[in-house]
Amino acid sequence: MINKVAVLGAGYMGSAITFPLSDNGIDVNLWGTWLDDELIQSSLNGFHPRLKKPLNENVNLFYSRDLKKAIEDVYTFFIAVTSEGFADIFKLLADNLEKDKKYCFFKLTKGLVEYEGNIMRATEAASIIYGKTFTCPDNSSRNKIKITSVGGPVRAVDLSCRTPSATVYGISDKTIEGMLPCFSTDYYRIFPTNDLQGVEICSTFKNIYSIAAGICDGLYKEWMEGSYYNILAFLFNQALLEIIKIVEAAGGKKETAIGLAGAGDLHVTSAAGRNRRFGELIGKGMDSEHAFMKMAKEGEYGEGFMALKLALPWLKKFDFDFKKELPLLFALDAIVFKCADAKEELKKTVLKLGI
Amino acid sequence: MINKVAVLGAGYMGSAITFPLSDNGIDVNLWGTWLDDELIQSSLNGFHPRLKKPLNENVNLFYSRDLKKAIEDVYTFFIAVTSEGFADIFKLLADNLEKDKKYCFFKLTKGLVEYEGNIMRATEAASIIYGKTFTCPDNSSRNKIKITSVGGPVRAVDLSCRTPSATVYGISDKTIEGMLPCFSTDYYRIFPTNDLQGVEICSTFKNIYSIAAGICDGLYKEWMEGSYYNILAFLFNQALLEIIKIVEAAGGKKETAIGLAGAGDLHVTSAAGRNRRFGELIGKGMDSEHAFMKMAKEGEYGEGFMALKLALPWLKKFDFDFKKELPLLFALDAIVFKCADAKEELKKTVLKLGI
Repeated sequence: MINKVAVLGAGYMGSAITFPLSDNGIDVNLWGTWLDDELIQSSLNGFHPRLKKPLNENVNLFYSRDLKKAIEDVYTFFIAVTSEGFADIFKLLADNLEKDKKYCFFKLTKGLVEYEGNIMRATEAASIIYGKTFTCPDNSSRNKIKITSVGGPVRAVDLSCRTPSATVYGISDKTIEGMLPCFSTDYYRIFPTNDLQGVEICSTFKNIYSIAAGICDGLYKEWMEGSYYNILAFLFNQALLEIIKIVEAAGGKKETAIGLAGAGDLHVTSAAGRNRRFGELIGKGMDSEHAFMKMAKEGEYGEGFMALKLALPWLKKFDFDFKKELPLLFALDAIVFKCADAKEELKKTVLKLGI
Repeated sequence: MINKVAVLGAGYMGSAITFPLSDNGIDVNLWGTWLDDELIQSSLNGFHPRLKKPLNENVNLFYSRDLKKAIEDVYTFFIAVTSEGFADIFKLLADNLEKDKKYCFFKLTKGLVEYEGNIMRATEAASIIYGKTFTCPDNSSRNKIKITSVGGPVRAVDLSCRTPSATVYGISDKTIEGMLPCFSTDYYRIFPTNDLQGVEICSTFKNIYSIAAGICDGLYKEWMEGSYYNILAFLFNQALLEIIKIVEAAGGKKETAIGLAGAGDLHVTSAAGRNRRFGELIGKGMDSEHAFMKMAKEGEYGEGFMALKLALPWLKKFDFDFKKELPLLFALDAIVFKCADAKEELKKTVLKLGI
């Protein structure tokens, strides 16, 4: 039985995950980063500005300055900070934990991270940081982190409305599976898998590929006419096929990419949310830096943009012929970072596939 | 080079396929069944009532009584009649063909068919009918039909607007691949595969499963609140996983189900179209017979309803444990044909999956 959990990051997903957890009677400490202090303040007054509702009563709110208080006597952590902040905040957390205790981490953060000059998955960075902090020469197994990558089609706002949702937990350690019934509810169904990296790569790349659906929305709303379900389905499927290739190249399982973490999450992310919207702004003619800044000003953070920035450099080690094997990713990179014209780029790459 | 093609069936898809064909300079004879005479008449007056636009000038229109004229000197056929009419019309066509000539058939019809008391794929029925009609004892290879199953995410209205679309051609005969450039255009991209049955099963079952998305739309619009992207993605993914199982059991390839014919087509069909709408009416509380009749009155024919009727009986030969292995299909069958309450049925089956 788990009685207490801390959630780090009080944005969309961090706040939304408090619903199933606290509905299950778990005492939840929700800690906000320095970027979240306003969200915490408003939530203390009974209204979370992103989710547009009050949080549950058994959710205790902590300002950024109160990390120590938020993690006191807590052994289970959900981490939902941005990918950019992930390594720093995980290090801060690790430094503040008791070195003779056992902890479990559930990572909701999506995207790749830069740590010590290398691009890697967030759980890889967490493992390195944990290994350095929890040095215990006489018991090397204690140095191994228990971390889970949480993925699957869960839009935060919908979860906070208790809409039935399915989520995939990519677990590194078999013992974690026993904990999952404590988190699941009637409306929050957990599917465990041992393919942690598959889940993590899916959550990163579905954010990237959903930008394509957004670009298509933007192009059609601004410059073109008629409905365009066919091209959305075409792009969706191309994205899925490319995600499968990436997951397999990186040692994950095809099943994960076909499942809820891949196809499922790509579905919801392409239909709604910040990454889709970021793409829409680009499709309508805004350049990507402006689109990112415009959204950032409104408190909206498009993880797909950051993930795409690191994607091609990270993928280099897998020897892809980008143009041939991952044409949609390559086109997105050209559109977002190399000022390529969105319509022309899609036309000349993806929409020329087939006979 | 193909100069002439006949399209049988002047409904949505039959009329839409005339666009890429005639844009490529092919002379297209569009023949309407007895149900289509009004569509032909209106099209002769310059307006197709389903597609809401005129057809191309090099599309020649034929009333149901003029089948012989429509197929004169034609060796390539696109068949886009309903699944219910398929076997009869294919027999009528075969009877009217010259027995010493070679023909190619491209089947756009989706769904299973009943023929001589058995439920089968439409191309299986076509093969039997063709074999019986084209009896040529001294050259048995002539008795083998050249038929292609056309699938993939192509919504007819969008195709007729020349929105970029991808389509999968499941070909039984390698020589057909050489014909495909005659049909493809900048906006109609053809992906060939030799997995004919995989393509055919995908097109049948995506129509069935898209009813689930519609039911969900109906339930939320009528009885519930808030957005429900998570549950749509959950249902989409469950549908995809079940389609993969069915395709594999029936001897098709997993790749086909993951590709444009499966995941891609399920995407567009769940987002828009008649099957989704049929589900929506059910979700809003109408019983399935009334929903089917209401749509039929408006000239809208939900293939998914007919396909679902035959699906479970057809699937019996593959020894599925329906409730365990195909829970969404089983729930849909219960909702549509056994008066099960849509909300309760989804809740107690699909939405209880996972931990």
